[in-house]
Amino acid sequence: MTANFTGALNELRRLLGSRFDTSTSVRLHHAHDESFHLPASPDAVAFPKSTSEVSEIARICMRHHMPMLPFGTGTAMEGGVNAYQGGLSIDMSLMNKVLSVSAEDMDCSVQAGVTRKQLNEYIRDQGVFFPIDPGADASIGGMAATRASGTNAVRYGTMREAVLSLTVVMADGKIVKTSSRARKSAAGYDLTRLFVGSEGTLGVICEVALRLHAIPEAISAAVCAFSSLQGAVETVIQTIQMGVPIARVELLDAVAIDAVNRYSDKDFPLLPHLFLEFHGTNAWVKEQAEIVSELAADHQGSDFTWALNTEDRKALWQARHDFAYAASAMRPNARIFSTDVCVPISQLADCILETVADIEKTGLSMPIAGHVGDGNFHVVPAVDPTDAVEMKMIEAFHASLIRRALRMGGTCTGEHGIGQGKKKYLMDELPAGVELMKIIKRALDPDNLMNPGKVVDLI
Amino acid sequence: MTANFTGALNELRRLLGSRFDTSTSVRLHHAHDESFHLPASPDAVAFPKSTSEVSEIARICMRHHMPMLPFGTGTAMEGGVNAYQGGLSIDMSLMNKVLSVSAEDMDCSVQAGVTRKQLNEYIRDQGVFFPIDPGADASIGGMAATRASGTNAVRYGTMREAVLSLTVVMADGKIVKTSSRARKSAAGYDLTRLFVGSEGTLGVICEVALRLHAIPEAISAAVCAFSSLQGAVETVIQTIQMGVPIARVELLDAVAIDAVNRYSDKDFPLLPHLFLEFHGTNAWVKEQAEIVSELAADHQGSDFTWALNTEDRKALWQARHDFAYAASAMRPNARIFSTDVCVPISQLADCILETVADIEKTGLSMPIAGHVGDGNFHVVPAVDPTDAVEMKMIEAFHASLIRRALRMGGTCTGEHGIGQGKKKYLMDELPAGVELMKIIKRALDPDNLMNPGKVVDLI
Repeated sequence: MTANFTGALNELRRLLGSRFDTSTSVRLHHAHDESFHLPASPDAVAFPKSTSEVSEIARICMRHHMPMLPFGTGTAMEGGVNAYQGGLSIDMSLMNKVLSVSAEDMDCSVQAGVTRKQLNEYIRDQGVFFPIDPGADASIGGMAATRASGTNAVRYGTMREAVLSLTVVMADGKIVKTSSRARKSAAGYDLTRLFVGSEGTLGVICEVALRLHAIPEAISAAVCAFSSLQGAVETVIQTIQMGVPIARVELLDAVAIDAVNRYSDKDFPLLPHLFLEFHGTNAWVKEQAEIVSELAADHQGSDFTWALNTEDRKALWQARHDFAYAASAMRPNARIFSTDVCVPISQLADCILETVADIEKTGLSMPIAGHVGDGNFHVVPAVDPTDAVEMKMIEAFHASLIRRALRMGGTCTGEHGIGQGKKKYLMDELPAGVELMKIIKRALDPDNLMNPGKVVDLI
Repeated sequence: MTANFTGALNELRRLLGSRFDTSTSVRLHHAHDESFHLPASPDAVAFPKSTSEVSEIARICMRHHMPMLPFGTGTAMEGGVNAYQGGLSIDMSLMNKVLSVSAEDMDCSVQAGVTRKQLNEYIRDQGVFFPIDPGADASIGGMAATRASGTNAVRYGTMREAVLSLTVVMADGKIVKTSSRARKSAAGYDLTRLFVGSEGTLGVICEVALRLHAIPEAISAAVCAFSSLQGAVETVIQTIQMGVPIARVELLDAVAIDAVNRYSDKDFPLLPHLFLEFHGTNAWVKEQAEIVSELAADHQGSDFTWALNTEDRKALWQARHDFAYAASAMRPNARIFSTDVCVPISQLADCILETVADIEKTGLSMPIAGHVGDGNFHVVPAVDPTDAVEMKMIEAFHASLIRRALRMGGTCTGEHGIGQGKKKYLMDELPAGVELMKIIKRALDPDNLMNPGKVVDLI
């Protein structure tokens, strides 16, 4: 434990009692996310129950110059919670109340620790749902902080579109509400969007107001195999160009299908696949499916295999959501190294094919899965982070993948965020933008206490 | 002309030649928008042709401490372009090139001076369109700067959702690209959204990359009269709750219908109306219309009157878009005082009815029109800004309307922005938020040169 923080730790213990923990096991649990990034324990972990308690915590930390690291479920991918400079992990899991739901306004307000599945359980009988679905059952606060998305983003948007308003605690303890509950607003700078994606480096997200959506009358999911990746991608491009509001359209390459077959006990043919879902009225879902199945046939896609009842549909998407675990299971005791580029969709087939050629050069097996309607895909090798030679090779592969995505007009991260892992790539992507981000970070967190060393380096 | 700026004006004239103007008539043209706010001329007007020229202009202005006021088409509503502190109006109308269009990616890139109608003309034969439609034929840069929306926002979102990336010139002349062209990204702070809605106070928006949408196979528009405002609003709430992706749903009260009838030579019955539009395939448009017409009938709505061919449809929406001019025409030589609150839709009927009671107390005739699917509505009295007594009464009415909207969880502006007119109301709406906005403004524009005195006051 860093000696300097003793005063802060004593004050925090007085404030939080048993909801303050310095035990090795709890600190270790808060030392890492689900990625390969090396763990780093915080000095202590706080479990606040209210926004005003988070504000008190921030005042104590600021007085003692102790870093603060907001922690949701620890399921992210770029080392965003790892405490490389020590400090206090602020675990939001006890702030798990749904504060209000309005079915008429199709919105709700939750504490940051509410998870996406918990929220959907809570609101289901009101005819509304919350669509954003990263693989893990992440917390809403963490999802807002990383601008998360998932399989429904092509139709319903990402956390950028889903968040109506935030209540944030700043480094000095000030509590800021970023916006009203109105569905649209031109009231000054978009503070909401400034905090969405700020990864805990500008403040602690404590409460989140969210847009919800009507549960559709009909939902149909289907699977379609293709003889080529291009055929699958072309099908999606034409689907979107025709204005079909497809709800989900996920690409898995043959290696990913193999991993899913093994992990989730499926028997899909070892070919590139699209997993699709349509939302609407019965007639409209039928018409959408007909349009897309015709487009798929034009591109050598198979007939659709339908998951018609709720159980089959859930099993299908659970298999997709478990893809990261399936990739990890391809090798014992491995960690996953999930890449996350996103390119304009016209570039997607080329980007994936060049990447497949690169994978072949490594001699490793790396599955590819993607939110193809958004141009976003993941290559997910299972790695041994302690093997320096292997990690060097993977890092080189990763750097090459990102260079390719940037050359094609894309981004180094579609949904995982920058965290610890992608700071250098962010500088490649937005060199002048990073300088602005640093100015904003310095202005809002002058002592660099909020999740320091993530997103941008100030030193 | 302010003497201090002589050096700057000389340098700007050398840089821009005939594209630099200090004539009274040109300065007067740049002294105001379309609102009642009193005009204030800039010291000069620049007409740059490129982003690098805007950067040169900013360097000169910064050196001489001369305010810079970006100017699009001068069609805004809150005095955002009025030069209350003098300075240089930067008129973007010569930066009117469409830089690229990708129908596959459904996006485009334009210079800031391109207008929304110009863009739609340019891209129409590629099967795509740009949906955001404030009443005026505004510039894309101005629309981004004010986070504009319009009648299509309920389906397609506002400029917040439409802008993919911006190229901005900062107060010191630095050129910043805010994002890649990827459809989604988690690459650091959302600089794009920070500038969308910043109203020229953080930098000059020079280039804009936009999302486009597929032109639907079928478009049908209809008009429906209601015996009560509540009936109209309830119809819309239930439409959205059922997940019907209605493209446009506009409310006009009986007074607004009267103004439209006179200005646009229509003969709608003097009742509250919904103007509606459905987009999709032929079958899907038919089904949506059936669902909504049944809901309307449940709420004492009339049968739908259809505008089936393109010409009738255009005439219908032109009448809606000309509403502000129709309101203005209700009184000779008047200016319009357009209010712009937005509330959660469950509060909309109450908010409008309480407002109607308030209008009755004034004894004036004030039409109401609203983007009812978003909860956003305008009360638009035609005023004489030189009549102090009348203006005082209207200001009191306005203040009461905004208090009501804030009490109901809404915002003081749904789409017009803060500009000069709503700074005090922004402080009521987001007291802690305004303090953050000031910190951001000071950090990014330390000399307060970018459209000073708008959105937030630093002094």
